[in-house]
Amino acid sequence: MNKDSHTQHISQQFNTELEEVRSHLLAMGGLVEKQVNDAVNALIQADSGLAEQVRDIDDQINLMERNIDEECVRILARRQPAASDLRLIISISKSVIDLERIGDEATKIAKRAILLSEEGEAPRGYVEVRHIGEQVRKMVQEALDSFARFDAELALSVVQYDKNVDREYKTALRELATYMMEDPRSISRVLNVIWALRSLERIGDHARNIAQLVIYLIRGTDVRHMKMEEKRKEVEGILQDKA
Amino acid sequence: MNKDSHTQHISQQFNTELEEVRSHLLAMGGLVEKQVNDAVNALIQADSGLAEQVRDIDDQINLMERNIDEECVRILARRQPAASDLRLIISISKSVIDLERIGDEATKIAKRAILLSEEGEAPRGYVEVRHIGEQVRKMVQEALDSFARFDAELALSVVQYDKNVDREYKTALRELATYMMEDPRSISRVLNVIWALRSLERIGDHARNIAQLVIYLIRGTDVRHMKMEEKRKEVEGILQDKA
Repeated sequence: MNKDSHTQHISQQFNTELEEVRSHLLAMGGLVEKQVNDAVNALIQADSGLAEQVRDIDDQINLMERNIDEECVRILARRQPAASDLRLIISISKSVIDLERIGDEATKIAKRAILLSEEGEAPRGYVEVRHIGEQVRKMVQEALDSFARFDAELALSVVQYDKNVDREYKTALRELATYMMEDPRSISRVLNVIWALRSLERIGDHARNIAQLVIYLIRGTDVRHMKMEEKRKEVEGILQDKA
Repeated sequence: MNKDSHTQHISQQFNTELEEVRSHLLAMGGLVEKQVNDAVNALIQADSGLAEQVRDIDDQINLMERNIDEECVRILARRQPAASDLRLIISISKSVIDLERIGDEATKIAKRAILLSEEGEAPRGYVEVRHIGEQVRKMVQEALDSFARFDAELALSVVQYDKNVDREYKTALRELATYMMEDPRSISRVLNVIWALRSLERIGDHARNIAQLVIYLIRGTDVRHMKMEEKRKEVEGILQDKA
């Protein structure tokens, strides 16, 4: 084997490793997205069996996080990636934290579902849980899609969408606070719904974080603390570069 | 310059860079700890001026995070650290995420302080805010100390302490929910205190995360999802190794 083909061989192996860790992240993401969906359904349908299943699967997600973390460290130590390969590893090792936290929030929602099935239904809030739940599940899905397809435009739309979720979450909280004043006996049950909504809002934040990591991965720019207008310019810059 | 002294020169420069990024992390940590303290005092003393100050300083923390992140990427790309140096960079680049989120939570508490100074004092909850606030501030401080001194025992005690905070937080929530039922007109103001407590509980979680990264840094083991008993064995293992 001459030197060139040896280098090529190593680089192919390296690409395979990068592809593998990326596909493991996406697999973990798929499971996490399912957890969000199941947790919301468990709460709305007062299905404590489904809620317990969500709680049990969380261990599996934690294990996936740990394995992906180890893969990233191994690649950093052995392959010493540079430029866009390094950005890929950094984006993966940060996204995995957000995915694990989304899993935690899904578990918290599942626990609220179990409490609600014990204490009896809340008189309000299910429409909001269903609506915001569907919005953040879609955000998680699209953040992962943007990672899979290196799609900065889709990632930007996820970042932008998070503002809607925050707005609807605040409206829902105000309405539920007013309702509790009218019917104080429902406070404990309504608070369970409020905590579930809070978890959904956090899931939206984590999906936004992942989307921002995708923009960093593609563009090399940390857009987290930029204003929306600046973020858009960053992403449009990518499109111009492509043209 | 012969080859050996050249290597030594590079390695000294590398150590300086590692020391620098670690000291930047600790400086950011010091500011974040102050933010937690100020946010809690702003809420307890209904000091909206102090609350606004906390809110304004958050930008500075975000900038520190960004700079530390860039330092870590630069070191990974140029120095290709291995073994414990690599673990140091990984621990720093993850801890910085937790520090930034602690800063966010301090800002959220400051916003609640502003709302409370507008809407009027809550009738309950200040004792709990002061008490849990002091506990989590100390957790942040000790997590940072354990990082500064590579002290796995201290880090473990922070991890352990988080369970106390979670317990006291749950007790406080139960009491405040009961109080709201007795005095429904106070619901909106009590909810502001509940959100502040929730932020404090999250700050405790982030301090615990940092402490777990210190154990990873020293021991090379990811203890996050281990039971407390297993974590203790891991850290005792370190002590035995030292003996």
